[in-house]
Order: sequence, then structure tokens, then C-alpha cells
Amino acid sequence: MSKFWSRTVQEAEPYVPGEQPTETDIIKLNTNENPYPPSPKAIQAMEDSITSDLRKYPSPTAERLKAIIAEREHVTSDQVFVGNGSDEVLAFAFQAFFEPDQTIKMPAITYSFYPVYANLYDIPFEQVPLNDDLSIQVDGLKQSVGGVIFPNPNAPTGLALSLSDVESIVQANPAQVVIVDEAYVEFGAESAVALTTQYPNLLVTKTLSKSHALAGMRIGYAIGHTGLIEGLERIKNSFNSYTMNRVSLAGAEEALADDAYYDQVLSDIVVTRDWVTERLKGLGFWVSNSKANFLFVQPVGIEADVLYNELKAQGIYIRYFNKPGLTGFVRISIGTDDEMTKLIDAIENMV
Amino acid sequence: MSKFWSRTVQEAEPYVPGEQPTETDIIKLNTNENPYPPSPKAIQAMEDSITSDLRKYPSPTAERLKAIIAEREHVTSDQVFVGNGSDEVLAFAFQAFFEPDQTIKMPAITYSFYPVYANLYDIPFEQVPLNDDLSIQVDGLKQSVGGVIFPNPNAPTGLALSLSDVESIVQANPAQVVIVDEAYVEFGAESAVALTTQYPNLLVTKTLSKSHALAGMRIGYAIGHTGLIEGLERIKNSFNSYTMNRVSLAGAEEALADDAYYDQVLSDIVVTRDWVTERLKGLGFWVSNSKANFLFVQPVGIEADVLYNELKAQGIYIRYFNKPGLTGFVRISIGTDDEMTKLIDAIENMV
Repeated sequence: MSKFWSRTVQEAEPYVPGEQPTETDIIKLNTNENPYPPSPKAIQAMEDSITSDLRKYPSPTAERLKAIIAEREHVTSDQVFVGNGSDEVLAFAFQAFFEPDQTIKMPAITYSFYPVYANLYDIPFEQVPLNDDLSIQVDGLKQSVGGVIFPNPNAPTGLALSLSDVESIVQANPAQVVIVDEAYVEFGAESAVALTTQYPNLLVTKTLSKSHALAGMRIGYAIGHTGLIEGLERIKNSFNSYTMNRVSLAGAEEALADDAYYDQVLSDIVVTRDWVTERLKGLGFWVSNSKANFLFVQPVGIEADVLYNELKAQGIYIRYFNKPGLTGFVRISIGTDDEMTKLIDAIENMV
Repeated sequence: MSKFWSRTVQEAEPYVPGEQPTETDIIKLNTNENPYPPSPKAIQAMEDSITSDLRKYPSPTAERLKAIIAEREHVTSDQVFVGNGSDEVLAFAFQAFFEPDQTIKMPAITYSFYPVYANLYDIPFEQVPLNDDLSIQVDGLKQSVGGVIFPNPNAPTGLALSLSDVESIVQANPAQVVIVDEAYVEFGAESAVALTTQYPNLLVTKTLSKSHALAGMRIGYAIGHTGLIEGLERIKNSFNSYTMNRVSLAGAEEALADDAYYDQVLSDIVVTRDWVTERLKGLGFWVSNSKANFLFVQPVGIEADVLYNELKAQGIYIRYFNKPGLTGFVRISIGTDDEMTKLIDAIENMV
């Protein structure tokens, strides 16, 4: 605590990301990274971008990347916003569309960065409890005063809402912005992007960190009505003219053009997710019906924090949230088949 | 204007960066980029960082880069903050150290992003006029209510304050944070970094965009007392866990270790700056005594906007600011000797 801190700093409650250990001989299943490498075409494009041109600023408007995203998402470029990871995109969206005196709604158990953003911008928030089956309470997210944010699929449960449920939330908040965070949508949930042309209050965010194996490059984007996108641009251009560097732009452009590669990667992860789910259930564990690249697991016969610590001692990192409502669970990212076999073997030796 | 915009978006007055034309056959002297390529060692390090590890998040704490900066700046790692360009670092600093109800001071003619940040965070500001010789009015920046920000050297004038003048401003605002933006300090001004150990209210920001020819990678940092750095970390960790990607971290680490290369680059730019200054003065133009990698120039015999437009028509981009107090001037970045010879030839043909 310093006497020079603004009230904003004093009241901030910073997010704590999952561990990023520097050892290379570990099995890292704690931050939902993709176990497969980025597309060879994206790698090549990034290598090609390492030239003397790095002395020059990147494009402040990222037109080329926006055009590629627009084509992929069947919208126009002015319905696309890009940023330095979807975390930055979400931060801008909180500042652009939510107000300090109007309470927003979010699920009580969800991506734990949302309350952090709300505190940063002094936005009051209501945390709507999950249903008993841990699914998002759809009706509870309707009729908000200040707006709504939720991920689909939700984190850390991995449970997805149907598109009709998402649409009903958007419809029930017509004068508020509804942000649907689709960080994990490519692993099996239905995207709401097509609804953005119909609903001017819907903003959908995505990231290349998980589906496109580019967490190390920090690439995120949002799709919405031009009015929402212009609002985001106004915030971004009041904060940092160039949020994406030349290499991340190059990597994003080529990654998003290489569907053939990523379709295979996504399919492989889903196959792995499904057999790991069955094996954990075979141990008597409760496992969520995840549509993401991670599993939300309630161990039986061993405490969640003990499981986390014992696996860590063996060099296998999973995520344990020491928070009310979450202490009985762990979150396990889907790695390669080989990594997941080692995980299952390790767990079997414990229970 | 969208009905979904927050008051913050409505009141934002976004910054407009210099043009980033996509043509490659132009002479680009409009955004103060370094005309020389980044260090070969930095290029190599960035190439080496393009691996399958990009699937993993970067270090959220950037310890290695902070340690390298700390050694270079003769401080400890906890006196170093890093970010996605010094623009992002400055935005965080406004939010961390200035308050909505306390007027800060800045020069009336200065980096035009400062009023933009102030508007974004609803911070009132007083613009202190320059002296008649366009230098910063030192006494005018003393006794602020809410804090002070100024660049040294100043932009777009290029004029530097002495270290004793900077210190007197820091001393005269003991309960406020004074931010000294040293984006251009490596081209000939005196850095205030050494004062940060003595004054807990002094924050110095730097960038690798200009001196280290890495504008395309967006790398900035700040040096200050641990209390200030912790404040910045709290904001950053409430905004985006990973603001620098793996490639920018790798490039920054190696660039900052290659003084031999950059000492030559900086020395070459200063030599070019000095002969260009003399040639422009020979045309009767007024030219500031710049300590930066650009010249602030008052043309004689031709209007500043005409000069700007005629040069642009010939593929030579300089910067013209259509703002009160600046309409008689242009800002010209220092390019290579060859580029500057072409510039001078083009101007000589006009006047």
C-alpha cells in the first residue's frame, strides 16, 4: 500500500492466473492451453514477419486481420474488433458498455476475471447462482439493470448453454449489452455470432489462445453490431493506438486461414476429452459434460486440494480454486493422449 | 453514437496516430520510427522464439526481462514495470496515480495522448503554456494538486530539460506522482532514472520503439519506487494477466543486452539530425535544438500544411498537427542520410 495509489488501485482485486512454471519436463494441464503446436502456416507467417520492418509501428487498425475474421465469421469488417488477447478485449468491453451505477449480472461461478474487471471500473455486479446441476441459471441472467456477461461454455464447469437459451438472455436485456465470452466455443458449443446481426446489444468475444494454440501470442477478438465495435475502438484508441504487434497480427491472419489444420486439432482434443471423462467416471469421480478443452472434476475418495498437490509433486499441474463453491473440484485441461494417460495412471495410484 | 455506449465512451476523445501507409516505396518520417533495423541479436532471439511453445501463455510476470532492465538501469527488479508499449504503461499510470477530482498538470504543447488518457479516466488537467522559446515552463509544473506528466525531451518540440529542472519539479510535488516520459531520452537528454531511488513520487517511462527500432513489437517499461511499481502491477493484473507476448519478451531481452549495436545506431541518428538541422536552417527555417530523433521545424516561405501535403504527394511523409499553436510547424523524424538528403532536395525545390 502506497500513499500514491489512486482509489482505483486501492480497491482493485487483481486476478491470479494459473501457474506458469518454467520447468520444461512437466505435464501442464492447468491453464487450458492447447497441447498441439500452432498451425505450421501460422508459424511460417510469424517467422516471415521477423524482419527489419519491426522498426515500424504495426497497423493501428489491423484491417487485414479484421477482413479475415469477417470472412470467417460471415460479418463485415466493421463488426470486428481485435485486441491483445480476449482479456484485453473484455476489459475494454466492461469500460465501454457497463456503468458505475448500474448493476450487471454474471454467473456466481464463472471466469474469475469478470469480478476483477468490475472492481477495476467500479461497476456493481450481481452473481447469479448456478443451478444444482452446475449449469448457468438462464432466467437469472434476464432483466439486468446494467448488462450481462457469461462464458459459453462456462468456465470452469465446461457446461454449455443452447443457442436458444443464449438468445433468450439477449432478448430479455434489450437495453443492455450482453457479452457472451466464447473462449472455448470451438470445442463443441454453439456460437452466438450469427445472432449479432439481429441483436444490436450482443457482443461475442473469442480468443486464439485455446482453439488455435496461440496463447503465447495474445490474440483475441469481438464480433458485434457496428455501434458496439465503434465503442470498443474509441476506448482502445484512448488507451493504446497499437495493441497487437506485427508478429501477432501475422500469426493470427494465417492461423485463422488454416481450418484444415485446426479442424483436426479440435477433433483430436474432443476425442481425448471423451475417453478421459469415461476413465475418471470409472474411478467414481463426478465429471462435468464439458464442451470445452478442460474437465471440471469432483474427485471421490481423495480431497480436491490433496489431488492437486500430489499431482503437482509428480510434475503434473492441474488447477485448484481455493474459493467458496469450488473447493471440492479441480479443473483439468485436455492434453495429448500420452499426457492424459500419465495423468490417469497417477490418479489411479492415489485412489 | 450508440445508445449502448457508457459515459466513458461518449466522453472519450481518441488519439489519432500518424499515418501508417502500406506502400513500401515511401520515405516515412512521420512517426519517429528508427530508420535502422533492430539488433541482429534481437532478430535472432525473436526468430528462435517462434516454436511450438507459442501454444503456452507467456510469463505473466516477465521476470527475465525485468531483471535485464534492472541491471541496465541500476535498480532492482521490483522497481521495474513492463508493458505492451509505453502507451499502455502510461495509460496504467494515469489510472494508478491520478484521481478524477484532482487536477494534474502537463505542458500545453506535448504528446497529445496525455489529454486523451485524462479524458478516458475522467481526470481534470491543466495545460501549462510553454515559454516563448517553446521550452517547458518548469515553475508552471510545480505545486500541482493531482500530479504531473511531461516528456523529456518534450514532443513535438524535441527540447530537453536539464536534470536539475526535472528534479526541481519532482521536489515541488512531494505528495503527487510526477511521470517523466523518456520515450526519446536515448537521443541526447539526461535520464531521471537515477532520481527514482531518492524520490518515491517519481515514475520514469521508456520505450524500445524509437531507440531500439522495435516499434512493431510494442515494448515499454517504467522505473520507480516499489510502491509505484506495485500500483502499476495491481492495475495490469486487473486488466490483462499477460500484456507482452512471447516474441516481444524475447526481442526486448536481447535488444536491451546489445548496447554495442544500439550505441552506433543512436550515434548515427544524432549525426544525421545535426546536419539536417543545419541544412534546414540554411533555408531560413526555424529548427528546434532537438535532443530527440525528430526535428520540430517552422518553415519560412511556405506554409507548414502546404509543405506537408507537397512532400506527401512526392511520397515523403512528415507530421503536421492541425492544432492551435502547432499549425505553423511540422515534425520531421530523422531517417537515414539518404532519406534525409532526398527530403532536403525536395524541400529545396519548393522554396
